[in-house]
Amino acid sequence: MIGDGMGVAQTTAYRYYADNKNTKAVETTIFDELLVGTASTYPDDNTYVTDSAASATALSSGIKSYNGAIGVDTNKKPVETLLERAKKLGKTTAIIASSQINHATPASFMAHNESRKNYDAIADAYIDETINGKIKADLMLGGGTRYFIRDDRNLVEELKAKGFTYVDSFDALNQLNTLPAIGLFAPVGLPFAVDNKALPNRVETMTKKALSLLKQDNNPNGFFVMIEGSQIDWCSHANDIACAMGEMSDFAKAIEYAHKFTQEHGDTLLIITADHTTGGLSIGSNGTYDWKPEKVKQIKHSLEKILTTMVSLEKSTTTEEIKTLWSELVGLPLSEKDLTNLKESLNSPLKQAKMQKVVKSIINDATFTGWTTSGHSAEDVQVFASGVNKSLFTGQQDNTDIAKKLFLQLSPSK
Amino acid sequence: MIGDGMGVAQTTAYRYYADNKNTKAVETTIFDELLVGTASTYPDDNTYVTDSAASATALSSGIKSYNGAIGVDTNKKPVETLLERAKKLGKTTAIIASSQINHATPASFMAHNESRKNYDAIADAYIDETINGKIKADLMLGGGTRYFIRDDRNLVEELKAKGFTYVDSFDALNQLNTLPAIGLFAPVGLPFAVDNKALPNRVETMTKKALSLLKQDNNPNGFFVMIEGSQIDWCSHANDIACAMGEMSDFAKAIEYAHKFTQEHGDTLLIITADHTTGGLSIGSNGTYDWKPEKVKQIKHSLEKILTTMVSLEKSTTTEEIKTLWSELVGLPLSEKDLTNLKESLNSPLKQAKMQKVVKSIINDATFTGWTTSGHSAEDVQVFASGVNKSLFTGQQDNTDIAKKLFLQLSPSK
Repeated sequence: MIGDGMGVAQTTAYRYYADNKNTKAVETTIFDELLVGTASTYPDDNTYVTDSAASATALSSGIKSYNGAIGVDTNKKPVETLLERAKKLGKTTAIIASSQINHATPASFMAHNESRKNYDAIADAYIDETINGKIKADLMLGGGTRYFIRDDRNLVEELKAKGFTYVDSFDALNQLNTLPAIGLFAPVGLPFAVDNKALPNRVETMTKKALSLLKQDNNPNGFFVMIEGSQIDWCSHANDIACAMGEMSDFAKAIEYAHKFTQEHGDTLLIITADHTTGGLSIGSNGTYDWKPEKVKQIKHSLEKILTTMVSLEKSTTTEEIKTLWSELVGLPLSEKDLTNLKESLNSPLKQAKMQKVVKSIINDATFTGWTTSGHSAEDVQVFASGVNKSLFTGQQDNTDIAKKLFLQLSPSK
Repeated sequence: MIGDGMGVAQTTAYRYYADNKNTKAVETTIFDELLVGTASTYPDDNTYVTDSAASATALSSGIKSYNGAIGVDTNKKPVETLLERAKKLGKTTAIIASSQINHATPASFMAHNESRKNYDAIADAYIDETINGKIKADLMLGGGTRYFIRDDRNLVEELKAKGFTYVDSFDALNQLNTLPAIGLFAPVGLPFAVDNKALPNRVETMTKKALSLLKQDNNPNGFFVMIEGSQIDWCSHANDIACAMGEMSDFAKAIEYAHKFTQEHGDTLLIITADHTTGGLSIGSNGTYDWKPEKVKQIKHSLEKILTTMVSLEKSTTTEEIKTLWSELVGLPLSEKDLTNLKESLNSPLKQAKMQKVVKSIINDATFTGWTTSGHSAEDVQVFASGVNKSLFTGQQDNTDIAKKLFLQLSPSK
């Protein structure tokens, strides 16, 4: 399981976000329970700061590559991935993501391409690059109809012709009882958990269904599944703490379930890590020794949703109307100065940029949340493990070591 | 050993800072070799962000307290510290710091005071609070003549009267061959490593001497020593990456020596952790996927030294003179825009603040270093261990758990 962009700041913030304020103790999380070590994430290009493609390629193949690389080395040559090896060994295989399923992380387990940006070619590869004539993954769940159902090629129809069941809603997913199958629940990524009150826990839901199907499949050779909490990264790129905590909450629940499954099936190994950390998040900022998770919890929507709505307001919108909308969207108190700044943003020729700056400031100042970047940073990430041979992952290691150790666990005798 | 303010960003940055660029591989560090887990650091006041006093009290006593607390609980009642227990058990005891030895971290092992700010009272307690009539520490090395040699009380003379040897220079420290002893090498903290070309590795030097004296003491009950790399925190408060890396380098060398000592003495346990992380440091910033340790290495002085010197320049200072001085102090290239900004700072009524902002920007922009705060933040810190029973510290724990485990190791039977 890969928490995209899930650095130490994200897991620590989640502990305080999830903390039950009715008890004096700070409750531990599934991350606390399963921590075994840390991992370095630098790519093979002297920049030290990896992107998701290079890091996922390291985690899928044990090979360091350049930023942008999907399952290829620095010479752009394909490298074998854990999922491919598993398939060769006769295991049942699956990929799950809350992004589109051909996004960098899952793609680096399923395909080989010189650039993560070649989304259509990567989606095509999910069908065209086979192992012993078979589709590499027996189960694919996530977003991506934009790439899998195109004018020039309908990959879903092709998969159906090869025996796959297709579902396009979580209701239909509930009914799904056989493999192989593909479920695509959004054109690109799934909606953010914080915006999706009806189903915030879609990674947990997909994980439960996937493990149920993989178990039921009862393959004597076992299974391999890569599950990504994709959008911790996206929320952190946006420097959106409420959004990031929504994603962390969903991913944590998915891990809790996978850990329980691992405990009940003694021959299973569960490894959880991150590909890198995103946003340069800090808990406390600007000299203040405090953080306000209870205010983070009050925030009702993602920055994306808040900004889209606020920016669409007319210049003539009254202060009262802004107050009402803010209360529905954000739920944090507004000072007179905040209100003035929001009004000014609406009248600014640079409405979008100004509004973004004002809204971010209000949220970060109220919660004492710090960010240094809209991109990634190079701090080591954590490694969590459960199940058989988990102690192999104890201590500090490179991200490529994680894949190398997993390849040994996939050897035919196991 | 406590790296004050040494978060995951600091240890990761140090790996890339220390990396030998003549080899393709990124070399691992002593931190990579010894990592066993992580620790939460929140104080007992719902702020989540600890100061050094509350955290050092947690690490010294196993009790969570409020920010500012020195060896006292939330009711301001004294709590027993590891050093005190060790002394009661007849062990030889020592504290080493690159700050003044009565600063929050060492103070929380040696004294009990409702506020870290009561420096004189804390220094007094080092002599007045005894264990079975004896001074608590047999060896104290660091800074602090301002607090130990005062007009109203000369604690050094009092210690000498009680049989302590006093040294006030590193040359004299070299000659020191007996315990008890106190060495004070600066009025407050020792000079920053990056400014101290003659002796950048003063924590390493003090650690070597301390372990040599403690070994030679040959106490059948063993010894307890707390060694602090105090100024990783100070440099990070100043958002000064070159300064922080200088301190990390010294602290890493001290750990390397202590680890070697531990390997050679099989009954020794070495635990290294941080009290909290400082500065909200990120490796990479402002959307750039890169970090430039080779530029950090070029920087010749601390921001404090750079700013003190630059601010003292006259308005009439020529561009050429600024260039020359910059080259001596900083060593990074200056753009025309940088030069203009520096000149403007000299002419500004807010000379100091403006100059600080300009110099920080030049360094952070050139190295892609991010900071969110002049204070601390609440991300979990790492735990490193070597020697007997080190596996007790594996995984995630609270900072108080570290002390609780160490108390068990100090039990009379061991």
